Amino acid sequence: MQSDDAIPDVVIKRLTIYARALYQLHASGAATVSSSELAAATGSTAAQIRRDFSYFGGFGTQGKGYEVGRLLEEVKRILNLNEQWGMVLIGAGSLGGAVARYNRFAENGFVICRIYDRNPERIGNRLDGVTIEDVATLRETVSREQILIAILTVPASAAQWAANLAISAGVKAFLNYAPASILAPPDVRVHDIDPVAALQSLTYYLSPGRSDEVEPSSRTTA
Amino acid sequence: MQSDDAIPDVVIKRLTIYARALYQLHASGAATVSSSELAAATGSTAAQIRRDFSYFGGFGTQGKGYEVGRLLEEVKRILNLNEQWGMVLIGAGSLGGAVARYNRFAENGFVICRIYDRNPERIGNRLDGVTIEDVATLRETVSREQILIAILTVPASAAQWAANLAISAGVKAFLNYAPASILAPPDVRVHDIDPVAALQSLTYYLSPGRSDEVEPSSRTTA
Repeated sequence: MQSDDAIPDVVIKRLTIYARALYQLHASGAATVSSSELAAATGSTAAQIRRDFSYFGGFGTQGKGYEVGRLLEEVKRILNLNEQWGMVLIGAGSLGGAVARYNRFAENGFVICRIYDRNPERIGNRLDGVTIEDVATLRETVSREQILIAILTVPASAAQWAANLAISAGVKAFLNYAPASILAPPDVRVHDIDPVAALQSLTYYLSPGRSDEVEPSSRTTA
Repeated sequence: MQSDDAIPDVVIKRLTIYARALYQLHASGAATVSSSELAAATGSTAAQIRRDFSYFGGFGTQGKGYEVGRLLEEVKRILNLNEQWGMVLIGAGSLGGAVARYNRFAENGFVICRIYDRNPERIGNRLDGVTIEDVATLRETVSREQILIAILTVPASAAQWAANLAISAGVKAFLNYAPASILAPPDVRVHDIDPVAALQSLTYYLSPGRSDEVEPSSRTTA
């Protein structure tokens, strides 16, 4: 196996897409999958999949392809998906509410265990079973509980402030739904989820004069 | 100005992030912005911004920097943001409901004008002011109204089916919230929004043994 240091971010991203397809194959009872089949299920190519897997030693195929269960376990191990991850959600408005109720988080081991807001009218209410707490108490609690992941669902104007607070509590990874870029130190990762920005990048290609110039189906993943 | 054909997808994506910052600067009454200031607001660098802008002729600075209002108009023109875009939403379950109620779409000119489902219990109900229609009528209506953008909020198992239906009606761009990869012809663009996949790519870097090996803050945008 190569050193983990050598693995490009884009390979890690594709690994999450393979994991998603493998979950579904496993759930449907498939025992083996070939690289071509996995490619068809993920919009990739067999060559790309084999190249990506080679970063991890290739996972070994036998005749009919990869064993689905074993491959899924390997990918989960690499992505650290065998543990449960506690998350803190900051911002309990309508967007925060929708995100808190998104049931695929918990199904995949990502559990929102703390929710904070600074609006006194929200503090003390419950959101999807979790009590909304005063953001003034975030730093102490999040650092004590060693929560490493934060979801930001605050307005753009509060995004950097909320991010700084979470970083001071030890958070190392952000899912940022606020429509603002946040700055973070080098050891902190930020993944922006901005569906409007996604639409804006799509409409560039929808201009009437460009309809015949579009490049081969480019796939991007949030 | 260079030919549009030469512009990499990644530059278009960054342009949407600059647009977001320019909207906020414009709203706050700023008249000019330097490339360094815009870099600070977007987590980019002044050199990167100037390089990105050079694809479009550079937009011209004078002394104090770019005129915010003029630059915003230019960027909006390039991204086709001066027109309203009608969208069809497919899948009116809890995720579809949350997406339909996300108010930043309409604020930015992206209007959900048709909502479809195949569940008879949902058809006829209203979601954020729009009546949920039978998906059996999608093809005729969407092609007649020339709607080019679809939001998929169906279960993974229905994603390809719904995508094929929309494509047959003339849809050219997808915002895909279904946790499944969909296959589309080369002239159709797909942008996946999968917050779980995003978290999974973040946790790779959170493994205890890697905390000191993380690369400089990598920023990704959905």
